[in-house]
Amino acid sequence: MRPYEHKAQYYETDQMKVVHHSNYIRWFEEARTSFMEQAGAPYGKMEQDGIIVPVRSVSCDYISMTRFEDTVEVYTYIESFNGIRMKCRYEIRDKKTKEIRVTGETSHCFLNEDYQLISLKKSFPEYFKVFKELEGKNNLYDEEGKQDE
Amino acid sequence: MRPYEHKAQYYETDQMKVVHHSNYIRWFEEARTSFMEQAGAPYGKMEQDGIIVPVRSVSCDYISMTRFEDTVEVYTYIESFNGIRMKCRYEIRDKKTKEIRVTGETSHCFLNEDYQLISLKKSFPEYFKVFKELEGKNNLYDEEGKQDE
Amino acid sequence: MRPYEHKAQYYETDQMKVVHHSNYIRWFEEARTSFMEQAGAPYGKMEQDGIIVPVRSVSCDYISMTRFEDTVEVYTYIESFNGIRMKCRYEIRDKKTKEIRVTGETSHCFLNEDYQLISLKKSFPEYFKVFKELEGKNNLYDEEGKQDE
Amino acid sequence: MRPYEHKAQYYETDQMKVVHHSNYIRWFEEARTSFMEQAGAPYGKMEQDGIIVPVRSVSCDYISMTRFEDTVEVYTYIESFNGIRMKCRYEIRDKKTKEIRVTGETSHCFLNEDYQLISLKKSFPEYFKVFKELEGKNNLYDEEGKQDE
Repeated sequence: MRPYEHKAQYYETDQMKVVHHSNYIRWFEEARTSFMEQAGAPYGKMEQDGIIVPVRSVSCDYISMTRFEDTVEVYTYIESFNGIRMKCRYEIRDKKTKEIRVTGETSHCFLNEDYQLISLKKSFPEYFKVFKELEGKNNLYDEEGKQDE
Repeated sequence: MRPYEHKAQYYETDQMKVVHHSNYIRWFEEARTSFMEQAGAPYGKMEQDGIIVPVRSVSCDYISMTRFEDTVEVYTYIESFNGIRMKCRYEIRDKKTKEIRVTGETSHCFLNEDYQLISLKKSFPEYFKVFKELEGKNNLYDEEGKQDE
Repeated sequence: MRPYEHKAQYYETDQMKVVHHSNYIRWFEEARTSFMEQAGAPYGKMEQDGIIVPVRSVSCDYISMTRFEDTVEVYTYIESFNGIRMKCRYEIRDKKTKEIRVTGETSHCFLNEDYQLISLKKSFPEYFKVFKELEGKNNLYDEEGKQDE
Repeated sequence: MRPYEHKAQYYETDQMKVVHHSNYIRWFEEARTSFMEQAGAPYGKMEQDGIIVPVRSVSCDYISMTRFEDTVEVYTYIESFNGIRMKCRYEIRDKKTKEIRVTGETSHCFLNEDYQLISLKKSFPEYFKVFKELEGKNNLYDEEGKQDE
């Protein structure tokens, strides 16, 4: 799968003349939903099927700054998944220089439309399979992108 | 009624070192919902009652710039209302100097939960009354720029 | 030139389950800066050269709603330009159905770093030329809705 | 010091019908700048004095959901500060029920205008004193959950 690309917009900058730190949380979401779509489990479809995937926690380390008109690549990686909980990791790099901008994590659970915890394994085995197959696979990039860990 | 107050936040600035122009549209909404709440028709309650009030158009004139930590006052004024359509006007001024920052307008209609046009007069006479009484009353401030309560 | 593409993100939706109206103002900006970059006058470079291009006014008509994961195309068009003032028009359409979502306008002036009005014709003839050549050219799309490159 | 109050806005909700998780990061910033202002070190003044205080990391635990028109209180607390690094903790509670919504942390450093690390103790002893006196003082609220002024 390809990393998700985002070009930093003017409205995302602040008066420090760099991208405001809150936007990276949104870029994680952009990358995660793109990742899910590529994997065959688009989040919009999951919601239509009655599954809500809220964010339980987020953390973010700001390593270097992104400037207006820079394009970044967001690498998404499912660290762990058991059908009840999911943890994702992200790495945001400058597209041109590959310099690291930000790393982070989000953790998620799965709810039904009454906001009650569900197990994907029991309730939605097809979705369970999609995520389970991606778990722990750092297969986001080919050899020439050389971003193994 | 009191004007709505908003203090410009760091994340609302951009690298021009002023508040990004898109935020004023959001401040209009903040002021409009506060105005509706003060008037006895909180938007949250209207939605619970099955009324949706989307924005049909917006316009905004940027007259002077707002900087980080400035507090502005947003004056909201119902220009016209007939139960089917509503037009609101806004004036945003610096709280301290009363200098004009932005003026603008939004127009709205009223929908039911199936996104179909409704007439408040027929379907929700209590809400109709609230808005009708405020229509055209520019009673937000007296001559000296102070406002009645 | 190609229209600018934007995929509606989850964080751009509101509890009406559609894209919040304020985001279209941001999509105008995304499209305008992309347009300027394609035209050979990237806004980041203009700022480095000491030119600031603030928004003087914006207007927006909301015709139909955009939902999460929809991709829209934003067509940008310079309606008028004289080196002192510039007016841009936008048309946002669903990428798949070409249904109109939003139309709008922004007007701009040109400032130097001391926030004083400048004439691009006098101060930056190269930039003047770029915008002047695009003025009034509705060459974004041919009759069938397809666009030239 | 008083906790910072924020009323959840419509544009802060998403189609899950709750406040989008990225906004809490912005509310941390709102609370932190308000806290600094109350403490006598307004961030705007610090920037004017040539000090930049970027965010080095952020973490956030989402415990319960905030809905449109809910008012929350954000408690800010300086966990550690040595003039070079600062760590802040936040607790966001519903104003009415005092139910916890979100807890989180941010860590910061201090830069000069050339984006180089500085020590507040050496370069800005007055600011150093302000933050040092607040360090570790969990004096925001007494046992009953009410706060001193």
